[in-house]
Amino acid sequence: MATGRRVGVVGAGQLARMMAQAAIPLDIHLVLLAADANDGAAQVVRDVIVGSPDDPAKVRELAEATDVITFDHELVDPDFLATLEAEGFVVYPSAATMALAQNKRRQRAELAAIGLPIPAFADVESVQDVLDFADQHSWPVVLKASRGGYDGRGVWMLADAAASEVAVAEAHTAGLTLLVEECVVLDLELAVLTARRPNGDIAIWEPIETVQRNGMCNELVVPVQTESRIAAEAVTIARRIVEHIQPVGVMAIEFFVSNGKVLINELAPRPHNSGHWTIEGAQTSQFEQHLRAVLDLPLGDVSRTSPVVATENIIGPADNSNPVDRLPHALLIHGTHVHFYGKGARAGRKLGHVTVLGDDRDETRQRASLAIQQLTGEALP
Amino acid sequence: MATGRRVGVVGAGQLARMMAQAAIPLDIHLVLLAADANDGAAQVVRDVIVGSPDDPAKVRELAEATDVITFDHELVDPDFLATLEAEGFVVYPSAATMALAQNKRRQRAELAAIGLPIPAFADVESVQDVLDFADQHSWPVVLKASRGGYDGRGVWMLADAAASEVAVAEAHTAGLTLLVEECVVLDLELAVLTARRPNGDIAIWEPIETVQRNGMCNELVVPVQTESRIAAEAVTIARRIVEHIQPVGVMAIEFFVSNGKVLINELAPRPHNSGHWTIEGAQTSQFEQHLRAVLDLPLGDVSRTSPVVATENIIGPADNSNPVDRLPHALLIHGTHVHFYGKGARAGRKLGHVTVLGDDRDETRQRASLAIQQLTGEALP
Repeated sequence: MATGRRVGVVGAGQLARMMAQAAIPLDIHLVLLAADANDGAAQVVRDVIVGSPDDPAKVRELAEATDVITFDHELVDPDFLATLEAEGFVVYPSAATMALAQNKRRQRAELAAIGLPIPAFADVESVQDVLDFADQHSWPVVLKASRGGYDGRGVWMLADAAASEVAVAEAHTAGLTLLVEECVVLDLELAVLTARRPNGDIAIWEPIETVQRNGMCNELVVPVQTESRIAAEAVTIARRIVEHIQPVGVMAIEFFVSNGKVLINELAPRPHNSGHWTIEGAQTSQFEQHLRAVLDLPLGDVSRTSPVVATENIIGPADNSNPVDRLPHALLIHGTHVHFYGKGARAGRKLGHVTVLGDDRDETRQRASLAIQQLTGEALP
Repeated sequence: MATGRRVGVVGAGQLARMMAQAAIPLDIHLVLLAADANDGAAQVVRDVIVGSPDDPAKVRELAEATDVITFDHELVDPDFLATLEAEGFVVYPSAATMALAQNKRRQRAELAAIGLPIPAFADVESVQDVLDFADQHSWPVVLKASRGGYDGRGVWMLADAAASEVAVAEAHTAGLTLLVEECVVLDLELAVLTARRPNGDIAIWEPIETVQRNGMCNELVVPVQTESRIAAEAVTIARRIVEHIQPVGVMAIEFFVSNGKVLINELAPRPHNSGHWTIEGAQTSQFEQHLRAVLDLPLGDVSRTSPVVATENIIGPADNSNPVDRLPHALLIHGTHVHFYGKGARAGRKLGHVTVLGDDRDETRQRASLAIQQLTGEALP
């Protein structure tokens, strides 16, 4: 007989899949709303509703079957979530938090209003707004979709007026709302992972160094190698954001460090790429913590389990071969923890990640890279 | 689209449930043969065949759906498994290993034949065999079922001839085959967890101190607190057993330490109670290792993740209340990892376990005990 608490998850991708793994020991029963019965998480969960996150009837069915609903992605209509809340359903993160997450223009306006450091930005209605902004801040500039973009999708690096014409036209044809940001000189990129439960308790993991390649976050290293002032500032800013937004669940905050200054890049009110290291690398993983938070259970210890933790993405190799077939080779690398997301292989697609624990920063990162090379059959760029 | 390797598990109890958790990141698809669709593991796995492990058609269906079949328990007919092997199905542990696991008389005879230390024993056909044995070794003696007993079931501590009459009659009525063993004076009980893959590679975790209460293994502590000679001897014996039996998968070996001497108590060719500490306490858990072994993948690092690891069982409290309801209280204890098995609550039933990592042996054990008290609402005996 099933006992325990019930959490509904809108979406059945890799985040829901890793939540499923974390849910088992705590006797938390997940119910998924999956677009497809073979989505990554739907392969490993018994109770799956197949349907679109845009279908109010399906989202309602999920809410009725569970104690709280949460999200694998941000593609849900916040207005409908607000309706569910008004009817007494528990939705975490809340409709208000989800609305903010989907609106980068509003995010930036709110963060600027409470005095937090962000790159210079402007809303874009026409290409002239981009040109005016570039006059003020110099080329190149970064054009972003206000909603929907992450991991390089919905982001354009623009070098001049001609490129701006093309990008703005393309984005407007796609119906996107836009903003433009200065292109900051990067010393380093960081992320800070936070969690908050409804009673206001907050837990913040230590900062993470994130290494981007081809517009995707490809590598995580903990602890960060930077001035302690910078790490401390990122944590302080993260706490101020959490106290201001008051989200429930895990929220990731990505930072640029530019000329020794910490600037907020993006927020994501959910478990996040930058937190995958916590599965083996922290006493409490972001997935367990998210479930604890949305169920209003006490938050867990966020301390590190090892002197160094390195996590690297498994990206589908150019020959479209499947890294799952090469698992035996990767498992020969000492201490390799492999995580596959149950996705079909395709060149350039994020298919999983590898985490390695160690004592020495370089040696640990090398083992992670070696494991990735074993899995993909490709040397890293 | 589902990719990856497929493992069939006969049985859907707690061991299969914890295998399910370990299978997700490696993209290993479990298919279960569950006696009941709501068995602990069947709650958390999508592909479940409902049927009896005694039903050859169901076991064959499982074998046909997967690359290898393995076991949550030992209640499967080894002759039928041998038939499957002869037809080319992969069965790990093998039919031969399963037959040995189910026959304590044969186990003892084989271990004695290769000169390994075991308590004095004799086969029992009638109560006279018990009396003769007691004459030689003195009362009390331990009567055991040759097949089916574990965690105190199928074991009788006999103080005298009258008790022996009753127990032998009762056991024979139940159709049990019996043996009798000397009752050894215990300094300590240990277990050694091993894993072997088909190519002969062996991995052995460090010895575990097991603390019994009411005939159940209730607490595990790693590292063991005993002479290093004793720990080393247990590991050496474990390796000799694995090299002799050549099982595939995880095998647990339980030891008595009596008057400074290491004696073999029981073997179990599967993930085992005494290995639950490895989920957080070792770089590779027994459940991941078992899956890697039966799929002939490279074995993982068995080193400890923390100076001290303490694991304690969650036993259903006398008032039949459900410890799942008290989860919030246990999560207040620093660094508590709670594992529920998805079973209905009943007084005296093993419902889960708690693992705590720490630096100090006493403090770590205290936190584990405190978490158990929070979950059960009962002080420990």
